[in-house]
Amino acid sequence: MYDQQQIHQEVKQWFRQVRPRILEGRERGLDIENKTSRLDLVTNIDKETEKFYRQKIAESFPGSSVLGEEGSKDDINNAPGLFWVIDPIDGTMNFVKQGASFASMIAVYYQQKPLLGYIYDVVHDHLYWGGHGLGVYCDDKQLPVPENTALKDGLLGVNGPMLMSNYRNLQEVVKQSAGARIYGSAGIEYIHVLKGKCVGYLSHLSPWDYAAGSILAESLNLSVKTIDGKTLDVVSSGDVLVATDKAYNQISSLMAAE
Amino acid sequence: MYDQQQIHQEVKQWFRQVRPRILEGRERGLDIENKTSRLDLVTNIDKETEKFYRQKIAESFPGSSVLGEEGSKDDINNAPGLFWVIDPIDGTMNFVKQGASFASMIAVYYQQKPLLGYIYDVVHDHLYWGGHGLGVYCDDKQLPVPENTALKDGLLGVNGPMLMSNYRNLQEVVKQSAGARIYGSAGIEYIHVLKGKCVGYLSHLSPWDYAAGSILAESLNLSVKTIDGKTLDVVSSGDVLVATDKAYNQISSLMAAE
Repeated sequence: MYDQQQIHQEVKQWFRQVRPRILEGRERGLDIENKTSRLDLVTNIDKETEKFYRQKIAESFPGSSVLGEEGSKDDINNAPGLFWVIDPIDGTMNFVKQGASFASMIAVYYQQKPLLGYIYDVVHDHLYWGGHGLGVYCDDKQLPVPENTALKDGLLGVNGPMLMSNYRNLQEVVKQSAGARIYGSAGIEYIHVLKGKCVGYLSHLSPWDYAAGSILAESLNLSVKTIDGKTLDVVSSGDVLVATDKAYNQISSLMAAE
Repeated sequence: MYDQQQIHQEVKQWFRQVRPRILEGRERGLDIENKTSRLDLVTNIDKETEKFYRQKIAESFPGSSVLGEEGSKDDINNAPGLFWVIDPIDGTMNFVKQGASFASMIAVYYQQKPLLGYIYDVVHDHLYWGGHGLGVYCDDKQLPVPENTALKDGLLGVNGPMLMSNYRNLQEVVKQSAGARIYGSAGIEYIHVLKGKCVGYLSHLSPWDYAAGSILAESLNLSVKTIDGKTLDVVSSGDVLVATDKAYNQISSLMAAE
């Protein structure tokens, strides 16, 4: 059995250690490769940061299973003990083009149950962390549970291509909100929802994009599921909607399959 | 005749003075009204901040003409001396919903010629300022002239409704870029372009939205005109495109009227 606080004392150090590697690494110049398309980038810093986390996990928590964006992909359903989901740099396009608005994320599960989530806003040096029964913190300060705001009263974070193609009526959803925002990093978008700065966020995401943020969102009583109300399985990519309960229900209804 | 530095020494103090009024005013609770629609907001802080700037202008630069978002609207063509354009809170929706990602902006003209531009990122306490012959500064640090990046290599700031309606082929423009971003404040979008974090920004704007940013953009050799290449007249609302030269030409060509 693992203790949340014991794991947290270890993991929070890792973020402090990766920050200079990430920021100074970018200053030195990046090796950038395309993965599936010219808009899907990976850099040497993505790879080195994931390798760093994997080494730390192996040293401190031997026997763990790991699913990482840039490395081997274990299956949570075959993980007897600790299971880690790593997104070393979330928002790599922002990292490359802006040197800002990106995050580094880790999610921790034990026996298939969410234990801890971490979104690290690297540039601003703020660590958002928490888990079931703990609540959510920004560094040492606990975040209040966001108000259960209705769609019409909140800004909605969205995925650009889904907005342009009017995916499942998304444009109507935006028209009923207070406006769309596109920040280009799932981690940064989740932070906006956790802090009540956006009423929700909708995008097509992979497990490493949604795992950490979803653990935090659930700890703040936000709804986080597929558009059709299915639980996220930490195995599949899919359409993820995180929102206040009110906004979740309104959006899900507006986007319901015909 | 007015000296840029003499005006600057005065104006920069005004931003330091409005910061606590804006941030503490929001903490105390806002009076919010709709202007033209439920998405076009004005608060007591917008009005009080504009009033503050107008008082300071009248005291320090008597005989000035002023065009402000929330007050009287003088015409630059009938302004014999100093002409001021004020946007007390740019991105009022962000101000109300997020308490972040908004700006306070002032543009100064003398005998119809641009003299100084100011975009103040209130939350981060950074003042972007400059003018023709001065260059552009963030606080005391001069910004380099951004690289002349091509559209395909940069992120593009856009207006949400224009993106959704595919205004003049905008979706194709975004597809040829490295991606769309929506931040919800013209001032914040201009800052991204000035710093080279976005290759351009396109929106339908009023003079108070574009005046200050455009003075700064021109000082960094960026292109800032209507989509059809017309000069901004500081009188009309219209479609404003600020971008690197390369991206400006590519976007303008993709959006050319049939």
